[in-house]
Amino acid sequence: MSSLRELYAADGNRPELKTNMNVDFVINYKIPASERDEAEAGFTQLIEVLTKAGVASEVRSGVDNTSVLVFVKVASDQYLKSKIYKERVQDWLYGVRITAPENDVNKVFEKEPISEAERLRVIYLLLTLPKNDGGAGITPKKGQWKHVESIFPLHNHAFNRQWIKQWSSKSALKEEDISEIRDKFGEKIAFYFAFLQSYFSFLVFPAAFGFAAWLILGQYSWFYALVNSLWSVIFFEYWKKKEVDLAVQWGVRGVSRIQHPRSSYKWDHEAVDPITKEPVKVYPASKRLQTQLLQVPFALVCLLILGALYVFCFSIEIFLGEIYNGPLKAYLTFLPTIILTAFTPTLSTILSNLAQRLTDAENYQTHDAHEAALIQKIFVVNFITSYIPLFLTTFVYMPFGNLLVPYLDIWRVTAETLSASEKVTTQGFNINPDRLKKQVIYFTVTAQVVNFALETLVPYLKRKVFKKVKEVQTEMEQKNGKSVYNPHDVPEEAAFLSRVRNEAELDVYDVSGDYREMVVQFGYLSLFSAVWPLTPVSFLINNWVELRGDAMKIAVSSQRPIPWRADSIGPWLTALGFLSWFGSLISSSIVYLFANGPEGPGGEPYNISGWGLLLSVLLAEHFYLAVQYLVRHVLNQFDSPGLQKERAERFSMRKLMLEETLGHDINLEKPLPDVPTGEKITRAALEEEARIASTRGHGTPEDAFWQRQQGMEETISVGRKLISSMAAANQTAKA
Amino acid sequence: MSSLRELYAADGNRPELKTNMNVDFVINYKIPASERDEAEAGFTQLIEVLTKAGVASEVRSGVDNTSVLVFVKVASDQYLKSKIYKERVQDWLYGVRITAPENDVNKVFEKEPISEAERLRVIYLLLTLPKNDGGAGITPKKGQWKHVESIFPLHNHAFNRQWIKQWSSKSALKEEDISEIRDKFGEKIAFYFAFLQSYFSFLVFPAAFGFAAWLILGQYSWFYALVNSLWSVIFFEYWKKKEVDLAVQWGVRGVSRIQHPRSSYKWDHEAVDPITKEPVKVYPASKRLQTQLLQVPFALVCLLILGALYVFCFSIEIFLGEIYNGPLKAYLTFLPTIILTAFTPTLSTILSNLAQRLTDAENYQTHDAHEAALIQKIFVVNFITSYIPLFLTTFVYMPFGNLLVPYLDIWRVTAETLSASEKVTTQGFNINPDRLKKQVIYFTVTAQVVNFALETLVPYLKRKVFKKVKEVQTEMEQKNGKSVYNPHDVPEEAAFLSRVRNEAELDVYDVSGDYREMVVQFGYLSLFSAVWPLTPVSFLINNWVELRGDAMKIAVSSQRPIPWRADSIGPWLTALGFLSWFGSLISSSIVYLFANGPEGPGGEPYNISGWGLLLSVLLAEHFYLAVQYLVRHVLNQFDSPGLQKERAERFSMRKLMLEETLGHDINLEKPLPDVPTGEKITRAALEEEARIASTRGHGTPEDAFWQRQQGMEETISVGRKLISSMAAANQTAKA
Repeated sequence: MSSLRELYAADGNRPELKTNMNVDFVINYKIPASERDEAEAGFTQLIEVLTKAGVASEVRSGVDNTSVLVFVKVASDQYLKSKIYKERVQDWLYGVRITAPENDVNKVFEKEPISEAERLRVIYLLLTLPKNDGGAGITPKKGQWKHVESIFPLHNHAFNRQWIKQWSSKSALKEEDISEIRDKFGEKIAFYFAFLQSYFSFLVFPAAFGFAAWLILGQYSWFYALVNSLWSVIFFEYWKKKEVDLAVQWGVRGVSRIQHPRSSYKWDHEAVDPITKEPVKVYPASKRLQTQLLQVPFALVCLLILGALYVFCFSIEIFLGEIYNGPLKAYLTFLPTIILTAFTPTLSTILSNLAQRLTDAENYQTHDAHEAALIQKIFVVNFITSYIPLFLTTFVYMPFGNLLVPYLDIWRVTAETLSASEKVTTQGFNINPDRLKKQVIYFTVTAQVVNFALETLVPYLKRKVFKKVKEVQTEMEQKNGKSVYNPHDVPEEAAFLSRVRNEAELDVYDVSGDYREMVVQFGYLSLFSAVWPLTPVSFLINNWVELRGDAMKIAVSSQRPIPWRADSIGPWLTALGFLSWFGSLISSSIVYLFANGPEGPGGEPYNISGWGLLLSVLLAEHFYLAVQYLVRHVLNQFDSPGLQKERAERFSMRKLMLEETLGHDINLEKPLPDVPTGEKITRAALEEEARIASTRGHGTPEDAFWQRQQGMEETISVGRKLISSMAAANQTAKA
Repeated sequence: MSSLRELYAADGNRPELKTNMNVDFVINYKIPASERDEAEAGFTQLIEVLTKAGVASEVRSGVDNTSVLVFVKVASDQYLKSKIYKERVQDWLYGVRITAPENDVNKVFEKEPISEAERLRVIYLLLTLPKNDGGAGITPKKGQWKHVESIFPLHNHAFNRQWIKQWSSKSALKEEDISEIRDKFGEKIAFYFAFLQSYFSFLVFPAAFGFAAWLILGQYSWFYALVNSLWSVIFFEYWKKKEVDLAVQWGVRGVSRIQHPRSSYKWDHEAVDPITKEPVKVYPASKRLQTQLLQVPFALVCLLILGALYVFCFSIEIFLGEIYNGPLKAYLTFLPTIILTAFTPTLSTILSNLAQRLTDAENYQTHDAHEAALIQKIFVVNFITSYIPLFLTTFVYMPFGNLLVPYLDIWRVTAETLSASEKVTTQGFNINPDRLKKQVIYFTVTAQVVNFALETLVPYLKRKVFKKVKEVQTEMEQKNGKSVYNPHDVPEEAAFLSRVRNEAELDVYDVSGDYREMVVQFGYLSLFSAVWPLTPVSFLINNWVELRGDAMKIAVSSQRPIPWRADSIGPWLTALGFLSWFGSLISSSIVYLFANGPEGPGGEPYNISGWGLLLSVLLAEHFYLAVQYLVRHVLNQFDSPGLQKERAERFSMRKLMLEETLGHDINLEKPLPDVPTGEKITRAALEEEARIASTRGHGTPEDAFWQRQQGMEETISVGRKLISSMAAANQTAKA
C-alpha cells in the first residue's frame, strides 16, 4: 500500500492544495457554443438567484473554454449560523435530537461546533432546495438549470492526505476514524465505512474457521455450512443493532423521516391537506401500486434475458471445453468469455436504464423513497448476473450434466455447418467435479481483484496518463509562447484554478456502487462458501485493501461528495437479510447434493432423493429462522453506548423540562407538598358541615356515607371495634 | 340473547345500584381468626398509610364476619387533578403524548376531561406504587399487606346495564362502542374488544367463502386452503396496523415504555447508574438468559407429558371404538374421554404452575415483561393441549393407521388379563375416513359451545344459586328474628353494603384468558379449517355470542377490573403471527395428504410421497411469506385516521413550539428577514477594505480571491465578458 500512499503524497505538498480560498461550492456552468445566448442569460439569472439566496459569488473561466466556474460562499457567517440553527431545531422537532437547542444561538455552537459536513450540507440545501423551502432552487442539469453541469464542494486536501496516510498504515480502524469521515463527508458515507469495517472485523472469524475447515473438513462440509450460516445471522443482527447505535451516537437517528422532496415528482392533482390546511400535491397510492406491480415482469424479463445469455454461453463453454476436440480448440475456449464480456455490460446497462425508468414511473415524492426503489431493482439485476453462473453449475451441470450433454450435439452440428462439413472430433464427456470449485474461486478471488483494479487503479492511471498528455500538450503550447495556465487567470490564482478545473472533471462518487459490491460479496459467502471454505480468507484480504481503496477513490479520483446524512445503510440492509436467509437454503442443498464425496455426485446421472434434498432445505431454513429469533432475543438483552447516550439525554431533558417549563410545584419525584394528610376535626370544619347539612336537609346519602367516620383516628377506632365484635361473633358461633 | 339481557336488567333497578357513594376503591381486608392481633395492627397501619397518601377512608364490616371493607376516595379533588396532570406530563415526556399539557392545569381538564378509567387507574397507582414512587405501597396478599385480600373499584351499574342492553340488540359494534369501553374499563380491555370485533368482522368473508366451498369444493380443497391462508395474512397484517392506529387515537401509543416495576423483583446487586447517578437494582441479563434457556426443557416436558397422555387415550379410543367388540363396549368407549377429562385440567394446572415458577425465576424487572414471558409459556401448554389430538389424527392415524393398529393388540391382551382370560372379541380394523372431520367439528363447534357455557353461564348460574341459598338462609334467620342485613350496618347503607359485599366475592376478570381462547380459535381456523370448511361459519356465530358474553362476564360475574392502559394486544400478536404462519405448513400438508378423494387416503397403508409432501409444504410456506411481504407493503401505502391524527398533532406542536419557544426571528417557513442580498459597493465598504488591506499588506490570498469581483453586477459583467471571449477563442480555433 505504501506505493498508493506515495501516489497521493507525491502531489500533496503543492501550495494550491493547501487552501480552498474559503470557497464553499463550485458551480460548473457549461457554455455550449450552439446555445451561447441562452446560456449567458442563464448565467445572469444564476448569479442573481445566488445573491438573493444570500451567497457571494466569483466567476472564473472554466474547463477548456466550454464553461465558467462560479465560486460560491455564504456571504455572512451569521446567516449561515442561523440556517444551521434552524436545521438543528427542525431535527429536534422531528425527534432526531432529543434535547432542544438552547435559545442562545452562540452557546449552541460553542457546545456543538459546526462540522465541515454540516456546513457543506446546509449550504448545498440552500443552493438546491426549491424557493418555497427557502433555497435558491438550482437543479443541476434540469429544466431552467440544464447548463449547470455540477455543483461540488472542494476537497480538503490537507485532511485527505493525512487520512490516506493514516489508514494505509493502520491494521484496524477505530470509531474515531469513522467519526472523522463523518465530520468531513457526512453520515451517509461514514455509514458505508462503518459497515465495511464491521464486516471486515467479523470476517476474521469465518476466515480462521474456514482455513481450519479447509485443512480438516474439506469442501461441502455440513458443519462448515452450519457455522457459516450461524455467523451470517449473528453478523446481520449485530449490524442491525450497531447501525441504530451509530445513528444515535451521531445524532441522526430518525433523520430519514426528514425527507427531501424530489424535484421531478409529478402530482396528479392538488388537494388541501386536512391537517395543515395547505395545498398538497397528491399522487394516489393505488396508482403507484399499479406501477410497482410492473416489478414482477421486470424481474422475469431480467431473469429471462440474462438467464438465456448465461445458458447459451454455459452450453457453448461445456461443449468447447469438455466435448469438442477439433481444430482451434485453444482459441475457441475463449468464445463464451468473449461473448459474456461483450454482452453482459450492455445488457446490464439496458436493464439498469429500464430500472431507472420504472422507478421514475413509480413517481416517488421523496428522494429517499426513489433511491430505495431503484436500489431494489438494481439488486435484482445484480443478483442474477452474480449468482446465475454458479446456480447453473450447482443445480444443472453437476446433477444433470450427463442427461443434458447429448442436447449439446446441436453445437457439433452447428460447428460442422460452419466449418463446411468438416468432421468435428469430440471426446467423451465426463462431469468435471472441480468445475463448481473453480468457478467459486474465480468469483471470489479473480473477479474481486479484477473489480478492484477496474474501480480504483484504472481511473487513477487514466487520470495520470490524461494529465501527462495534458502536460505534454501544455509544454508544446508553452514552446509556442503560450502560458501553462489559462490566459484569463491571474498568476497568483492560476495554480488553484487549475486544481479546481481538475476536480471539476472528476467522477461523482456514488456510495451505492460500493455497497452493492460488498453485498454481492456477502452473498457469495453466504450462498457458496461451503464449496470452497477459503472464500472468507480471500474476502478478508480483499476487504482490507477495499477499505483503503475506497478511501483513495473518494480522496483522489472523485469530486468531494455532498455530505448527506443517513440513519442506516438503507435498502442494503434488506438485501443483506435476504442473502443471509437465502444462504441457508442454497448452502444446505449444496451440502446435501455434494457432501457424499469430494469427487462430487459420482459421474453417473445423479440419483437425487428429492425427499432428502427438500428435507435438508426445510430443516436448514427453519434452523436459520429459529437461530435468528434467538440471536435477536439475546442481542436485545444488552445495552449499547448509543442507547445509553440516548437514555442519558432523555433523562437530562426530562429533568430540565420539568424544572423549567412546569415550575417547581409539579415534580415527578416526590408527592405534592400540599397533600392533605387526613381529615382533622376542627371546630371550623364541624360548623361548616353542620351548615351544609342544615341547608340540604341531612345531605345526600353519599355525604352521609363519608361523614360517618371523621378523620383517621375515628376510622381506626371504628375498625378495631368491628374487628373485636367479629371475633366475639365468631366465638359465639363456635360455642 | 334477550334472556341474557333480562338477566341483568332484572336486578338493575334497585336503588343500591344507582350510586357508588363516591367510593373510588374498596379494600377487602381479611381478619383471620387465628391472626387477629396481627391483622388488627395491619389494619391500623393501612388506615395510616392511606391517610398519608392523601386518601380518605371509611370502614364497614365485611363479608361473613371474616373481613372488614375499607372504602377509599381521594380526599381532595385538586390533589387528584395534580396527580393526573403529572401523569399526563409524564406521558408527554415519554413521547406517548405529542403535545405537552398546557401550563394552566384547569385548562387541561377542560380540554380533555378525566375519564372514569383514568381516574381509577391513577388512584390505583396511588394506592399500590412503592412509597419511593409516590404511592402508598400497598401490595395485596404480599408481605406486610398479606391480609389485604383485594383492592377493587365498584361497578358503574348504570353504565353496565345500558351497555349490555345496547350490545345485545346491536348487530355490529362501532368505534364509539369500543371507545366507551375504553373510558370505563381502560385501554387494555378495550383492546380485547376491539380485537374481537375486528376478528368478528373479518370472519364474515371466510364464513361466506367457507360455506360456498363446503357446497362446491368439498373438504380438503387446495383452493380453500389458499384463500384461507391469504385471509389470515391479511387479517394479521390489518390488525397490526389497526392496533397502532387505535393506540394513536386513544393517546396510548408507546405507553408500554412507561413500565410499572414488579414488587417481587429480586436484584443481584446495587450499582450507580452511569446516567442518572442514582442507585439502581441490577440483575444481570446473562443470568436471566440462562434461566430463559430452561424454556426449552419446559416445552419438551409439556410435549412429553401431555403428548403421552394423548397418545395413551388415543390408542385406547381407537382400540375400543374401532377394534374392540366385546362386552361393555357401549360404556368402555367413554373411558378415554373420562381419562382426558380427569387428567388434562390437572396436568394443565401443574404445567401452568411450573410456567409461573419459571417466569418468577426469570425475575423480570417490570410487570409487562413478566406477563409477556408468562403468556408465552402458557401459550405453549395451550398449543399442545389444543392441537395435539388433531395432529395425531392427521399425521399418525390417517396415514399410518393400518401400520400401527397391530401394536394396539396390547390393549386386547390387557383386556383379557383384566377380564380374567375371557376371550375378547375384536372386529377388523379400517381407517375411519371421517374421524378427522368429526374431530374438527368437535373442536370447532361442540368445544366452543361447552367453553362458552363454562365461562359465562355456569358462573352466572352458580351465583344465582348461591344467592338463592343465601336468601333462603336469610329468610330463615329473619324468621328467627335476625335482620336481612349485617347487624352493624346502618339501615340506609345496608342495601349498598350488601351489594359491595357481593362484588367483593366475585372473580377477578383476567383478559388474557379471553385472548387465549380467541387465539386458539384462530389457530383451528388457520391450521385445520381445510378439513371442514364450515369452521369459520361456526366461529362467526360463536363470536357474536362471545363478544356479548364477555361483556356480560365483566359486567355481571366479575369485579370491575383495574383499568390498565396498553398499546397493543401484546404477546398475543406474536402468537397470532406464529399460528398464521404455521397454518400455511399444516393446511398445505393436510391438503396434500387427503385431497385425492373425500374418502381419504384409501384405506391401505398410505403411499406417502415425501418429495411431494415436502414440496407442497415448502411452496405453501414461501407463498405465505411472499404474500405477507406484499400485503405489508400494500397496507403501508395507505393512511389511517390514527396516523393522520398523529401528524396533525405533530404539525400543530411544531408550529406552536416554533412560535413560543424560539421567538419570531427564527421561523422555518421563510428565510430570515435580514438576509444579506448582495455585496453593495458603498463608500464605507471600500474605505473599510482599504483599511484592512493597508494593515495586512494586500490581504490574504483568500481575501484577494473574493475581492476581485465586487457585488453581483460585477460578477455578471465579468462572467459575460468571459463567455464572449470563450466564444471568440472557439471561433479562432475552428477557423
